[in-house]
Amino acid sequence: MSVICVGSVAFDAIETPFGKTDKIIGGAGTYISLAASYFASSVKLVSVVGEDFPATAINHFKNRGIDVSGLQIKEGEKSFFWKGKYHNDLNSRDTLVTELNVLETFDPIIPASYQNADFLMLGNLSPSVQMQVIERIEKRPKFVALDTMNFWMDSSMNELLQVMKKVDVLMINDEEARQFTKEYSLVKAANKILETGIRYLVIKKGEHGALLFHGKHVFFAPALPLEDVFDPTGAGDSFAGGFMGYLDKTKDVGFDNLKRAVIYGSAMASFCVEKFGTERLENLKRDEVVRRIREFVNLVSVDIDLV
Amino acid sequence: MSVICVGSVAFDAIETPFGKTDKIIGGAGTYISLAASYFASSVKLVSVVGEDFPATAINHFKNRGIDVSGLQIKEGEKSFFWKGKYHNDLNSRDTLVTELNVLETFDPIIPASYQNADFLMLGNLSPSVQMQVIERIEKRPKFVALDTMNFWMDSSMNELLQVMKKVDVLMINDEEARQFTKEYSLVKAANKILETGIRYLVIKKGEHGALLFHGKHVFFAPALPLEDVFDPTGAGDSFAGGFMGYLDKTKDVGFDNLKRAVIYGSAMASFCVEKFGTERLENLKRDEVVRRIREFVNLVSVDIDLV
Repeated sequence: MSVICVGSVAFDAIETPFGKTDKIIGGAGTYISLAASYFASSVKLVSVVGEDFPATAINHFKNRGIDVSGLQIKEGEKSFFWKGKYHNDLNSRDTLVTELNVLETFDPIIPASYQNADFLMLGNLSPSVQMQVIERIEKRPKFVALDTMNFWMDSSMNELLQVMKKVDVLMINDEEARQFTKEYSLVKAANKILETGIRYLVIKKGEHGALLFHGKHVFFAPALPLEDVFDPTGAGDSFAGGFMGYLDKTKDVGFDNLKRAVIYGSAMASFCVEKFGTERLENLKRDEVVRRIREFVNLVSVDIDLV
Repeated sequence: MSVICVGSVAFDAIETPFGKTDKIIGGAGTYISLAASYFASSVKLVSVVGEDFPATAINHFKNRGIDVSGLQIKEGEKSFFWKGKYHNDLNSRDTLVTELNVLETFDPIIPASYQNADFLMLGNLSPSVQMQVIERIEKRPKFVALDTMNFWMDSSMNELLQVMKKVDVLMINDEEARQFTKEYSLVKAANKILETGIRYLVIKKGEHGALLFHGKHVFFAPALPLEDVFDPTGAGDSFAGGFMGYLDKTKDVGFDNLKRAVIYGSAMASFCVEKFGTERLENLKRDEVVRRIREFVNLVSVDIDLV
């Protein structure tokens, strides 16, 4: 049993109102696989880096039991680099630098040992690469999740719609759901997206929590009110990793278990934002995770009689 | 057992992306008392209108069993009037006209029949009027709630702090909590506000739900994801009315029951925004309310094992 995690492994340089970093390790594939590693029996990374990527960082993956057979290292090339600056409210940011580098020609490799995985998490990448991954996995995984972003909605909507036909759940944020459907109401947006035939939809609202839609059902998980959010980078990917890791651990892809997975995903996102970069996700203790999940449950816990 | 509801009874003219109204009945006291009337055994209104206020509108209060002995009608004067226009996201609005009229010299009268009420809801008004009401009620009610707004934080902070010492719960929105404390984090803002000595704090986040703080405890109630929000006017006041009406009905002001009251308040706010003005709050059926509460409970309902 395992989760294949596909996404960028990269360098980020981040500025928030609380400080700034030089190049640190980031990327969707990094956050997804780290977060999933706390629950999944096996996490298998698919990505690409350049020769500038430090071996010590690859060891960080290995230390968390993450299989890096599908992580290509391109000699003579440079890793993907993103530099961004968050505004004071941390809800919006400016991208200052994007250097695609190795991602420009990314040709994903699925090692033989990755075949027969039950779960596949397609992190934000071009829909054509996501489709290649799907096609290169011989037996369709039991459950496939897809993340994407507004950039691909603008540039590759048709390809994106083709990928959506192959997956079980789409995870996007509120602004992306609005852009996708031209609907301001998230309920209307969700209904339109479900009309494409996809079974589940997660709409991530950052500090305002996450919604899970399925047919006429809707489930809401709050975000944990935190004293300090240092760096929102990777929160959505940590959510995806926690979500898929929990599903892999519990082997149940029914709606009730997806609700639990949303809580586990939200918990991993809440850890992620407490420090810069991946710092908080590298050495969590089981006790901390259990306590955090309990905080989420208590936050909305109410025993109500209908009067 | 009864709830005294203090607040403006007024005319509003509202424009939203979905339409506009001429002068319709509005005001904090109106929404609070209508929402409370679905739960409280007795609702007692304290307010003031001018001779332009229609008798039919006063009958609407009476039809809902609301006691209007404390509603002064000022001959030769005009009712408070507010005109506003909501932006496309409905989260922000511009005030186009504010005519204080009778509110400028409001001298609240507490009829003898209102004395001995257990609950007092002080809707948004100047802190000096709120203090007058408190002083004119002979026996302190069991539970007193206070709403206010950024305008009074700018102009009358000292008076507001004096009123806060006399009440059990402060209800404000997220931006007001930030302005009050100069803290962006709502957790930090809440801690600062609780340091003033107030026992409970509700922070209303509009479409993003509401938080209840008490000591180190925090409870979160989501807002219901709605297909359409037609008019947010009065949502916060409907929340307050539902909250206090539920407390009056259940006679329990412990933290666990306040959590339930937050759900009842959120339910009344969710009805309020479905139509323009007070329309939706005038004729709700018991079944509709029960179904709505159940929707709130189901929205966050998850049965979780800690793995």
